[in-house]
Amino acid sequence: MNCLSPSILSADFANLGDQVRLLDECGAQYVHIDVMDGSFVPSISFGFPIIKSIRGLTDRIFDVHLMIDEPIRYIDEFVACGADLITVHAESCAHLDRTIQAIRDKGILCGVALNPATPLSAIEYVLPNIDMVLIMTVNPGFGGQKFIPYTLDKVRDLKRMIDKKGLKTDIEVDGGINLENVERVMDAGANIIVAGSAVFHGDISENVSCFLEKMREV
Amino acid sequence: MNCLSPSILSADFANLGDQVRLLDECGAQYVHIDVMDGSFVPSISFGFPIIKSIRGLTDRIFDVHLMIDEPIRYIDEFVACGADLITVHAESCAHLDRTIQAIRDKGILCGVALNPATPLSAIEYVLPNIDMVLIMTVNPGFGGQKFIPYTLDKVRDLKRMIDKKGLKTDIEVDGGINLENVERVMDAGANIIVAGSAVFHGDISENVSCFLEKMREV
Amino acid sequence: MNCLSPSILSADFANLGDQVRLLDECGAQYVHIDVMDGSFVPSISFGFPIIKSIRGLTDRIFDVHLMIDEPIRYIDEFVACGADLITVHAESCAHLDRTIQAIRDKGILCGVALNPATPLSAIEYVLPNIDMVLIMTVNPGFGGQKFIPYTLDKVRDLKRMIDKKGLKTDIEVDGGINLENVERVMDAGANIIVAGSAVFHGDISENVSCFLEKMREV
Amino acid sequence: MNCLSPSILSADFANLGDQVRLLDECGAQYVHIDVMDGSFVPSISFGFPIIKSIRGLTDRIFDVHLMIDEPIRYIDEFVACGADLITVHAESCAHLDRTIQAIRDKGILCGVALNPATPLSAIEYVLPNIDMVLIMTVNPGFGGQKFIPYTLDKVRDLKRMIDKKGLKTDIEVDGGINLENVERVMDAGANIIVAGSAVFHGDISENVSCFLEKMREV
Amino acid sequence: MNCLSPSILSADFANLGDQVRLLDECGAQYVHIDVMDGSFVPSISFGFPIIKSIRGLTDRIFDVHLMIDEPIRYIDEFVACGADLITVHAESCAHLDRTIQAIRDKGILCGVALNPATPLSAIEYVLPNIDMVLIMTVNPGFGGQKFIPYTLDKVRDLKRMIDKKGLKTDIEVDGGINLENVERVMDAGANIIVAGSAVFHGDISENVSCFLEKMREV
Amino acid sequence: MNCLSPSILSADFANLGDQVRLLDECGAQYVHIDVMDGSFVPSISFGFPIIKSIRGLTDRIFDVHLMIDEPIRYIDEFVACGADLITVHAESCAHLDRTIQAIRDKGILCGVALNPATPLSAIEYVLPNIDMVLIMTVNPGFGGQKFIPYTLDKVRDLKRMIDKKGLKTDIEVDGGINLENVERVMDAGANIIVAGSAVFHGDISENVSCFLEKMREV
Repeated sequence: MNCLSPSILSADFANLGDQVRLLDECGAQYVHIDVMDGSFVPSISFGFPIIKSIRGLTDRIFDVHLMIDEPIRYIDEFVACGADLITVHAESCAHLDRTIQAIRDKGILCGVALNPATPLSAIEYVLPNIDMVLIMTVNPGFGGQKFIPYTLDKVRDLKRMIDKKGLKTDIEVDGGINLENVERVMDAGANIIVAGSAVFHGDISENVSCFLEKMREV
Repeated sequence: MNCLSPSILSADFANLGDQVRLLDECGAQYVHIDVMDGSFVPSISFGFPIIKSIRGLTDRIFDVHLMIDEPIRYIDEFVACGADLITVHAESCAHLDRTIQAIRDKGILCGVALNPATPLSAIEYVLPNIDMVLIMTVNPGFGGQKFIPYTLDKVRDLKRMIDKKGLKTDIEVDGGINLENVERVMDAGANIIVAGSAVFHGDISENVSCFLEKMREV
Repeated sequence: MNCLSPSILSADFANLGDQVRLLDECGAQYVHIDVMDGSFVPSISFGFPIIKSIRGLTDRIFDVHLMIDEPIRYIDEFVACGADLITVHAESCAHLDRTIQAIRDKGILCGVALNPATPLSAIEYVLPNIDMVLIMTVNPGFGGQKFIPYTLDKVRDLKRMIDKKGLKTDIEVDGGINLENVERVMDAGANIIVAGSAVFHGDISENVSCFLEKMREV
Repeated sequence: MNCLSPSILSADFANLGDQVRLLDECGAQYVHIDVMDGSFVPSISFGFPIIKSIRGLTDRIFDVHLMIDEPIRYIDEFVACGADLITVHAESCAHLDRTIQAIRDKGILCGVALNPATPLSAIEYVLPNIDMVLIMTVNPGFGGQKFIPYTLDKVRDLKRMIDKKGLKTDIEVDGGINLENVERVMDAGANIIVAGSAVFHGDISENVSCFLEKMREV
Repeated sequence: MNCLSPSILSADFANLGDQVRLLDECGAQYVHIDVMDGSFVPSISFGFPIIKSIRGLTDRIFDVHLMIDEPIRYIDEFVACGADLITVHAESCAHLDRTIQAIRDKGILCGVALNPATPLSAIEYVLPNIDMVLIMTVNPGFGGQKFIPYTLDKVRDLKRMIDKKGLKTDIEVDGGINLENVERVMDAGANIIVAGSAVFHGDISENVSCFLEKMREV
Repeated sequence: MNCLSPSILSADFANLGDQVRLLDECGAQYVHIDVMDGSFVPSISFGFPIIKSIRGLTDRIFDVHLMIDEPIRYIDEFVACGADLITVHAESCAHLDRTIQAIRDKGILCGVALNPATPLSAIEYVLPNIDMVLIMTVNPGFGGQKFIPYTLDKVRDLKRMIDKKGLKTDIEVDGGINLENVERVMDAGANIIVAGSAVFHGDISENVSCFLEKMREV
């Protein structure tokens, strides 16, 4: 299924509750939650208290993307805050399989994210054990960056890899996605679309509607 | 001057804008902003986007307390987000004087925080160059902890040290302060009071008023 | 040649000398020695003094598996303690070829271990220079874990890779191996079998005999 | 009370059970257990499985000395292995008070160790909250080193500090202590004596008896 | 184009200016500058002040090879010192694409280096975005080491990969290259040759001439 | 004895040999060699090859100031390069006494450096075991910085500490020292003067002569 996952990194944090409620009403299926620690990525975004504050406002899937060192240290806390899906970076896990198992043991969905330069061989053996692969289409750490064209090839290669193994793994893309290029990344094989500025700049409802419409047409 | 610095770590982040405006109206002089990175302290709170979102809502002093590794990496960004006072931990700066100079060079106020076990010798030589010392009265990383009694001795020792050097350095205390013990810590020498749960649990306006009243009486 | 490498991680350390002598008498060809540092893996097992204490008791191959950060720092010491074979993790060596050379320069055998999720490309170029590849069949760090099924595919892929290059490299497997699944992993291509609980729980002699018998039949 | 704490780092690990039983019979009040991780100190000794294996053999106080990075990560496990007293290094705890509280919360005794060069100011404020201070009289990491003379001054300074505060804190010394210098360190103020080679080289029973006799006379 | 890049790591630093002028006169097209930090590699060579001192003496391409942790921290400084080409190690960049972009944004050439054991998959997706791949033919950290034979296979595999993608990426080789083996590495596909001892030991002019002649003949 | 230690960090590295010979002829007693690794300090200067290249040119004392992480790793190499005096930072040694012993065991002089903010308690117990204390009068990492006034107090406090213990320890100062302030720092107690820009900018011979003259007058 094709799903939109608006990234609240681009939200107005003075009115976060209202904006999250709005996303829910407009029909966005996921809420993308970008946790950055200032060490794995060169920016500090937010963590537990923000997630907890909005958990009660919507039943949408909390799609928590951990851009932090050794995320296994904090899996329990993020689940306690209400995560439905936790995505960890292959580059920040010395023991990727153990981290995946720790997430699955909590009964929630598990994703693995890959930086633009990281090869697909990083997930070759664990692919059957995860629900989603997140292909970074910009370098993680900031909102508002430009889509990196070569990552489309990686989405295509991944799609082929998933099909060849007979799997149904979701492919999420994150970074620089907007109404102009969303069809292209979906054609390449992505089915979960993260959008930040493209959703929160301007009229949120209209932006979400346009995305959902485009995504239905693919 | 005696000042109250409510810590938004205990705020409701779905309604942060409203709560910050309320603090301003009630007369709290500072807004205490606890940045945690999950590495220096075992919790991830929030960083740049949250601070930026509320900067336009109040002119109160943004008292940014950095519980992060090597804060010198991010001084420029925190100033760009609107910090008026940046406090760094002596324990997380290999080059404490350089970090202090980096903050002062931006034209804002500078504080140094000390964990409960850290001796005052850590700031012995830099004391004349800073505006505030933050004595942690709990171990940093979480809201809602119990005040550690022996830290009162440290506040007293620090007050003596400041007086002996003929300085006017502010003394801030953070952790487990409430309406029952605020007078005791002020008697010991503290003049800037951080309060989290004690402000945000229950009626915020009333809590702030009670604090400000007690603090005037000291 | 098929060999059994009982892991003393599951031994009774109050009677280690007797248990090691027993392994020797029963015909186990290797002694598997799991060194864990609490940093590369989340457990601290043992190091130099334990290995030294038992070196005089048997001539069997001391198969030292280093689950530690940057093992190159300690190669000399482990050789001095009596290691005959040192295995390092590809994930913990910034300079894997240098580490391999450091081991070979001491005139002993060299292995490279791969965590479950790590792809075989990690050893693609160094394969002709090593004596053994250790495929982790659980996540390293603890005894008594359950065998991860997909690692069988990796053993098969590795066997094909070795055959294709015309090499004779040993394939060791470690984690969750018991009398029920040992034939399956050997069919996949493994020829050195690490067993911990399956050897030390119950009657050690009988367990070793059963393993050796099964391993001969393959 | 004066107590002897033989360090099993110098024991014969092939016969650890027998040697521990012997210590118990000879009247040594503590068993000193030196955990080294190869990172905080340049040696890897042993951890959980060794401690567990001998816990059932004696009721003596298991005096676990953690020479590891950020020991707070493993307090629970060491308690589960049977530690009665856990000592952490001030140099390896970013949050010393939190680590002390974590130990005390488990209902066991708590010590803080100081490297030879570390000043006593490191424990100035936490002294009333701990049961013991361990003054390292050699640099931690190896058995069999020579006693560093200037550490006697530190023992004396600490004794004065403890007396001045009206406390009863134990003072343990570790490194290079033998029958020749034990009286000198006790005269300086130490009351818990760690001895490794001086106990385990030669006749253990006789060595322990000689130590206990000397220690009674002081 | 085939180019020689003499590594000044083997130069006489008391007469660096003269030696660099000589390289220029002899026709060496690049100056190879090996920056080592004592952390990513086990040696400390040199950095900013040395590069700055010689920048004014020649217009040859300053080929700066960064054997340092997270080189993205220092890209601006190396460009300010006069680098024309910066090469970073895939093994030392958590965010390789971001590091490449940071170099390209400065308007200079960008290379990626691979340690002997590192597979080519590490650069699979970024290959079209870089100007050069540096295949280490020894383990980085020291001059005067012996060429590792299996790295020739990697050069060949890389050449095929580049051709298959229709690219013109340069292939540089570094370590143990001399007049005996230079033709072999160029036959394998390398076109930029780093030479240290083979240039600086003996008569520099003659050495450079011999290299350039051999390289023209290939 | 009062000595000048010109820092070659400010030298012209294209003509280092000539400049070092000139310092020798002018009568500067020490050569100050600032090793920076880009990790302990935010700059990379130089290491082994530069020191080796100039060792044969002068018999003056090579005063090697290690601004690097855990300098104990490289003591042997720096001695092999010709260091007569090695100074390590208290802030970068987890085991300061062990590092001091490692230097002294090589039969050379040993110093300990303190960053501006670091209290003298850091060297309280090791003072009798070292030959020199280096009081940083700027934050280490760059040449050409401005002298920090409060460090004069630290020099005075140190001088008192040394006198009180009846020691003869040298006091070196480094950072922002010039012909205007050199008398002031010597009055405070310093007897070894590091000067960089103040020696190398302009006429080196004249600068050295002026320093030496001023230093004799004190």
